[in-house]
Amino acid sequence: MENSLDFFKIKHLDTTCNAREGIIKTYHSEIITPIFMPVGTQATVKSLSPKELEECGCSIILSNTYHLHLRPGDDAIALAGGLHKFESWRKSILTDSGGFQVFSLKDISKISEEGVWFQSYIDGSKHFFSPERSIQIQRNLGADIIMMFDECLQTDANLTIIENAVNRTIRWAYRCVKAHREIPFKFDYPQYLFGIIQGGLDKSLRKYCVEELLELDLPGYAVGGLAVGETTEQMYEIAQYTCELLPKNKPRYLMGVGTPENILECIAMGFDMFDCVMPTRNARNGTVFSWNGKINIRNSRHANDFSQGIDSSCSCYACKNFSRGYLRHLFMAGEILGIRLLTLHNIYFYMDLIKKSQEHIIKGDFINFKKQTLEGFSKEKNNNFEQETEYGHSE
Amino acid sequence: MENSLDFFKIKHLDTTCNAREGIIKTYHSEIITPIFMPVGTQATVKSLSPKELEECGCSIILSNTYHLHLRPGDDAIALAGGLHKFESWRKSILTDSGGFQVFSLKDISKISEEGVWFQSYIDGSKHFFSPERSIQIQRNLGADIIMMFDECLQTDANLTIIENAVNRTIRWAYRCVKAHREIPFKFDYPQYLFGIIQGGLDKSLRKYCVEELLELDLPGYAVGGLAVGETTEQMYEIAQYTCELLPKNKPRYLMGVGTPENILECIAMGFDMFDCVMPTRNARNGTVFSWNGKINIRNSRHANDFSQGIDSSCSCYACKNFSRGYLRHLFMAGEILGIRLLTLHNIYFYMDLIKKSQEHIIKGDFINFKKQTLEGFSKEKNNNFEQETEYGHSE
Repeated sequence: MENSLDFFKIKHLDTTCNAREGIIKTYHSEIITPIFMPVGTQATVKSLSPKELEECGCSIILSNTYHLHLRPGDDAIALAGGLHKFESWRKSILTDSGGFQVFSLKDISKISEEGVWFQSYIDGSKHFFSPERSIQIQRNLGADIIMMFDECLQTDANLTIIENAVNRTIRWAYRCVKAHREIPFKFDYPQYLFGIIQGGLDKSLRKYCVEELLELDLPGYAVGGLAVGETTEQMYEIAQYTCELLPKNKPRYLMGVGTPENILECIAMGFDMFDCVMPTRNARNGTVFSWNGKINIRNSRHANDFSQGIDSSCSCYACKNFSRGYLRHLFMAGEILGIRLLTLHNIYFYMDLIKKSQEHIIKGDFINFKKQTLEGFSKEKNNNFEQETEYGHSE
Repeated sequence: MENSLDFFKIKHLDTTCNAREGIIKTYHSEIITPIFMPVGTQATVKSLSPKELEECGCSIILSNTYHLHLRPGDDAIALAGGLHKFESWRKSILTDSGGFQVFSLKDISKISEEGVWFQSYIDGSKHFFSPERSIQIQRNLGADIIMMFDECLQTDANLTIIENAVNRTIRWAYRCVKAHREIPFKFDYPQYLFGIIQGGLDKSLRKYCVEELLELDLPGYAVGGLAVGETTEQMYEIAQYTCELLPKNKPRYLMGVGTPENILECIAMGFDMFDCVMPTRNARNGTVFSWNGKINIRNSRHANDFSQGIDSSCSCYACKNFSRGYLRHLFMAGEILGIRLLTLHNIYFYMDLIKKSQEHIIKGDFINFKKQTLEGFSKEKNNNFEQETEYGHSE
């Protein structure tokens, strides 16, 4: 299988915390970690072009096995030459396994040891996902990093249910590895299979899941089942606990996290990879992130504000060219350009946050950078009429 | 007032028809004519950035006095430093007077010799437009070319109604010129006031309107009240008749026209300026123009077509990077990038059509170019499941 020594190398360890700076190498790009992966559910990061994503410094984006299997179909994408060619994205792609989406469709799923039957939300047609099927579909999609098919739970599930799900996740992990070994690559480059640690908010189950999945010696490990409704404190506690159990020499991916604050905190714990719909989804609701905190562009205080853009210290196309007053006008008038510019800014901001984090890990003063940045985030706070609390992994 | 000799110069007259190639100079740009002006109703050409418009070769865009007065308000735009700064557009802008929109609101307008009372479609608030008010608002917007406030009619109005409207349009033209002379420019560059020829489908009224408005010696003249529901043949007949009555040394603007075919035919008549929502609106419906004719990207025949883009001879970002199959997927999945890429292509295509027209006028073989281009447009025809017949000046 793939040589995980070539796949990931740590370059710098921060001296003030567990943050690390490193590099993931895939066929399509070199990914400096820590990294944020914008979510391109339907083979497009909503409203942005691949060119804009590259200009924001993105080196890897995420796409959804579940959505793409239903539309346009993974067969069609295979015919197009894989996701990269399909969506004209030259750098890396990670696909999730579909587990998260399938298990959120409680009412229309039939779950067994073999796999999950579910109906398409588009046309009601019946589909079956299993570890083998997920790997097969992800072969057709051709992402550089693919995820194991796991059993996902509601955050309020009881301990027996979580324990059963963890055990099934472990059994499915073995089936995924077997399928990954047996099904040849579809395109002329390797795909790296990551494991996913489940276990809800129970530390002993998290530890058990880590121990079992480490047996498989996968090239990377993700922590799943967080940022799904628990408190931030609970999320931090389980994330930190699980992170410390994961091997130091492999990428650690915290799925579905999170706010800029969350990302800084979890970088400090030693996580390397993040994805979240927050920058794109919030933009579509009029919320933008800045070094001074969150702003809702719909707020009437921006109506006649033609003297400043979203963030005076930001170098994105939106901040360099457009005032808050104009952006608010676009938003109030329902204009697509408004969504575009806010999304562009938010992705640029997330990538900028990541880039500066990398720089400060190299400098060895990440904790200090984190502290100052978090203080800055409160500057706009008193002006906000809305605090966003939503977490989420899908969009 | 402005010196119309500096404003417009004809450089080449085609020898095979009445087409002419020339240049309009405003403070913000040099506009090679014939020109197509994309419509940016609400201070944005729907879904595109100013940078993309420049990359498409646009030198002038159109905006709407009516819409901008209602939202965000012309006072706000004046505060922003005018439309150019507001929307970050460095080249020229033309604003229409609001007449077309106000007179389409039949049920909520009260029309008198003084002007028109109407209610906002956004919040029901009452507003008054008159020749003086329209000029005042257009001062606040600060476009390079502004239009006189005219009385617009349904295409099926009877002759007496049309005659009354023409006479009022003439009286209002005099009031517009007076207001234009008396109200100082808001910004440090001139605005050029164009007259609008009305008269429905009646040639003698068109002739009368031309004769009366020529007395005002305006820097440019537009033909209004066409492409509002009459047949293409009727439109061509009145457009050609009126065009020949207009002065040769001034820009002739055919408002709200039209399809690529319409534009080629009307360039041959001697028109210099065009605007239409067709490239932007059609894109949002999934219809794209190409040198081989129109394509509806939603058609299932494109679903697995990953071997070609919209138009193999087109150099736009959409055609250089994305297959018909991917564009269809974006469209079927309701993704903004689909609208963006189709709009970008359509505007690029219109500008390319215009640029090639200019080149062939200079070469002196425009009629031949027009004939070959129109023949090319039929190639995709048999594959289309939908023929678009919509005309329109607003969007």
